Amino acid sequence: MNSKKLNLPYYAVIFSSVRTKIDDGYSEMAVRMEELARQQEGFLGFESAREELGISISYWRDLEAIKNWKNNLEHSLARKLGREKWYQSFKVRIAKIEYEYGFEKE
Amino acid sequence: MNSKKLNLPYYAVIFSSVRTKIDDGYSEMAVRMEELARQQEGFLGFESAREELGISISYWRDLEAIKNWKNNLEHSLARKLGREKWYQSFKVRIAKIEYEYGFEKE
Repeated sequence: MNSKKLNLPYYAVIFSSVRTKIDDGYSEMAVRMEELARQQEGFLGFESAREELGISISYWRDLEAIKNWKNNLEHSLARKLGREKWYQSFKVRIAKIEYEYGFEKE
Repeated sequence: MNSKKLNLPYYAVIFSSVRTKIDDGYSEMAVRMEELARQQEGFLGFESAREELGISISYWRDLEAIKNWKNNLEHSLARKLGREKWYQSFKVRIAKIEYEYGFEKE
């Protein structure tokens, strides 16, 4: 994601979460959801990191692409399991990326 | 950040970075910058996590607050040191938060 140049504006789904102690398929599901997101029309990129707080950001061409991804059946099931088992709390933010710049060392 | 209810829209600065192997004051500076950001007019919150990729997001009331923070002298110096020493690469995205929802387990 860091080196690609994207047409502005585009959109992001910022997912900030605190996990429960329950693993039970979490890692496999996280991998599967990233793989599935990458196959969606309008997907632009994905970034994530976790310490105590986890932050995952997926980037999308427009709000329609985000809506389609939200309505994806397998993704909906994963979110249901997430609320039941894997997440203590989370926050989802839909954001319009209006401006960006990058830096890369020689 | 996860439990507060903020007036929409508000803004985010998404900072995605890969570190160099150089420490040399990095941790102290990271702590200082978060502390300094919290004192700025229009600051709403801060979230961060790092694995190989680091993601730090600061939230702001409006673009003017972001501009003032960017022009803060101590912050400008920190960014200069960041490019010289601490970051292999980074990307800054300015985003307008248009919609949000949260979940918290009972």
